[in-house]
Amino acid sequence: MTVIKGYNVAVVGATGAVGQKMLETLDKKDFPIENLHLLSSKRSAGKELTYKGETYVVKEATPESFEGIQIALFSAGGSVSKKLADEAVKRGAVVVDNTSAFRMDPEVPLVVPEVNEADITKHKGIIANPNCSTIQMVAALKPIKEKFGLSRVIVSTYQAVSGAGNEAVEELRQQSQDFLNGEEMTADLLPVNGEKKHYPIAFNALPQIDVFQDNGYTFEEMKMINETKKIMHDDSLHVSATCVRLPFFTAHAESVYVEVNDANITVEDIQQALKNADGVVLEDDPTNQVYPTPLSASGKSDVFVGRVRKDIDHPNGFHLWVVSDNLLKGAAWNSVQIAESLIKNNWL
Amino acid sequence: MTVIKGYNVAVVGATGAVGQKMLETLDKKDFPIENLHLLSSKRSAGKELTYKGETYVVKEATPESFEGIQIALFSAGGSVSKKLADEAVKRGAVVVDNTSAFRMDPEVPLVVPEVNEADITKHKGIIANPNCSTIQMVAALKPIKEKFGLSRVIVSTYQAVSGAGNEAVEELRQQSQDFLNGEEMTADLLPVNGEKKHYPIAFNALPQIDVFQDNGYTFEEMKMINETKKIMHDDSLHVSATCVRLPFFTAHAESVYVEVNDANITVEDIQQALKNADGVVLEDDPTNQVYPTPLSASGKSDVFVGRVRKDIDHPNGFHLWVVSDNLLKGAAWNSVQIAESLIKNNWL
Repeated sequence: MTVIKGYNVAVVGATGAVGQKMLETLDKKDFPIENLHLLSSKRSAGKELTYKGETYVVKEATPESFEGIQIALFSAGGSVSKKLADEAVKRGAVVVDNTSAFRMDPEVPLVVPEVNEADITKHKGIIANPNCSTIQMVAALKPIKEKFGLSRVIVSTYQAVSGAGNEAVEELRQQSQDFLNGEEMTADLLPVNGEKKHYPIAFNALPQIDVFQDNGYTFEEMKMINETKKIMHDDSLHVSATCVRLPFFTAHAESVYVEVNDANITVEDIQQALKNADGVVLEDDPTNQVYPTPLSASGKSDVFVGRVRKDIDHPNGFHLWVVSDNLLKGAAWNSVQIAESLIKNNWL
Repeated sequence: MTVIKGYNVAVVGATGAVGQKMLETLDKKDFPIENLHLLSSKRSAGKELTYKGETYVVKEATPESFEGIQIALFSAGGSVSKKLADEAVKRGAVVVDNTSAFRMDPEVPLVVPEVNEADITKHKGIIANPNCSTIQMVAALKPIKEKFGLSRVIVSTYQAVSGAGNEAVEELRQQSQDFLNGEEMTADLLPVNGEKKHYPIAFNALPQIDVFQDNGYTFEEMKMINETKKIMHDDSLHVSATCVRLPFFTAHAESVYVEVNDANITVEDIQQALKNADGVVLEDDPTNQVYPTPLSASGKSDVFVGRVRKDIDHPNGFHLWVVSDNLLKGAAWNSVQIAESLIKNNWL
C-alpha cells in the first residue's frame, strides 16, 4: 500500500494569467500539496492570493526560494526560467517549465502526457511544457498518426489574447469599449510586448504572434513547427504554420490540414480515432450545427475537435477544427498533468 | 471623339450593407449616370437615401421597375435575383448580380476584372459577381498562376460580420457591449440567418458561414472552391477551404497556402509578381512589422497581401496573408468595375 503524501510545491509566476490557472488546476485536481510556495518577480511580490481558502503572500523568486521544494511549476517568462530553473534543480526540485526557455533543448523532454508521457523518464530535473497552440494540435494529431500514419500538417491558428497575458486581456477589453464608445483605440502591447509597433486587436486580426525570424516566420510559428516534430518524435513530418491573434479572450482555435499515409481512410475512421483518444472530445455534427468554438471550450480541460472533412482533391488529405482553452490544456492543466505523472510513476 | 453619356442605372438592394457601398462606389468613381433608380424589397421601400446630394425614395423592385434601365446592380439576396434578373434582362438591362444565384451557371460569366475581364464578352444579359472571400483570393492568385503555374490552394479564412449584412454588424456591436457590461449575450442571427441554432460571435469564432452541404463543407467553402476554378478557368486546380466568421466588422483576411509548378521560385519572385499585379498591394516587411490587417484594409478598394513565405518542407509551397474590404473589392467595388468594363469596352 502506498500512503499518499503531500509534496512541497512552488508556483513561479503565481500572479500571472497562467499562474492563476495553475492554482485553480492544483485545487480542482486535489494535488497532494504539503507546503505551497507562491513566487513571482520582485514587482508582484507582496500580493496576496488564496488557495483552498488560505491566504498566501507571494514572495520574490530567488535561488534560495527552492530549498526543500520537490516540484516547481514555472510560468514567469523565459528569462526567469533561464535564471532560476537550474537553481531549483540544484536544490532537489523537479521543474515543469511552461516557457520556451528549454523546449528545444535536446536534454529536456517536451511533454504532452497523452502523446509522449514516457519521455518524462528521460528528465534531468527539467521537463518542458510545450507552447499552447502546439499542445492542442498534437493531442488531436496523435491518434491520427498512430492509426493512419501522418506525413504533413498545415495549420492556421485563431489565437486568444490571454496567450499574451493579463495585460493583453485588459487591452482587448479597453479597446473594445473605446471603439463601441466611438473613441480612438490605444495600442500599447499587442501584437508583441516590447516590439516597435503596436496595433489594435479589438475588432481586428493580427498576423503576428511573437517576433519575426529571419525566414519570415514568427517565433510562434516556428515553435509550432519544431515542437510538433520533437513531441511526435518525427523529424520527417512536414509541418507549417500561420499564427494569428484574434479579439477573443480565451481558447485557441486551429484550422488544421493533415495528410495521412493511407488513401483509403474515411472521415468516420478519423472521427472514431479522435473519439477514442485520451483528452480529446469529438464535437462534430454539422447537421445539428455541432462544432467547438472558443467560447464553448473556455474553462474546460479537453481538446475539442470538429469539422472533420476529407479534402476534395487529395485522397490522403483531411481538415480538422481544433479548439482548446489555451490557459488550461494549453498551459496550466498540461503542466499539472506532467507533475501528476511524475508522482504516479515515481519519476520524481 | 466619344461623347461620355450617362446610363440609366438601377441598384437593387440599395438599403443593404452592400447596396450602400454600391452608391458610395458609384459616387467615388463618378460613374456616368443619367437616371438612378434605387430599388429594394417591399419591406425597405419608402426609405430615403442620398446620392451626390440628392434625395431618392427607395421603391419596391418589380419587373416593371426595369423599364428603360441599361445597367442593374443586384445585391438583394439570391431569391430576388432569381425572380427579377431575367425580368431586367428581358427589358434590355445588363445585370451585374452580387448574389450566388447565377455564379455557377455555365451560361453566366463570373468575373473579377483583374483576373478574367474578357469573360464579360460572353454575357447573355447577366454577369455574376463572385463571393467576397473568393474575389480577394483570386486577385492574389492570378499573378502567381500566370507567372509560375499553380496546382494547389488551401485557404483558411478570417471573415468579418458585415458579410452577413447590417443586422450581423448590429448583433456583434450589441453582444460586445453586453459582454463588456457583464450581461448575457443574445444570439439571434449568426452564424446563419434562419438556421436552427445561433451562437454569439462577440469574443468568439464560428467555423460556419452559410449552411452545411452533404459533404461536410459549408456552402461558403464550396463557393470558394467552385468559383475559384471557374474564374481561373482551371478545373484541375486543387482548392480546399475552411471558412470562419470572426468578431470584426469589415474586411476578410485569408491564410492561403499555394503550390506553384516551379520549385525554383523564391519569395522575392512571388512578391515581385504581386507588386506588379493590378488591384493588388504588397504590404510585406516583417522587419518593420508591415502586414495588412482587417482594420488597415477597411475602406480601401485594393487587395492587400503580406506574410509571403516559402513552405519550410515543400519546395513548391508558399504561404500568403490576403486581406481586403469585403464590401468594396469583395462586393460593390468589383460590381461597379464590371459595369465600367461593360461601358469602356462597348460590351453592354
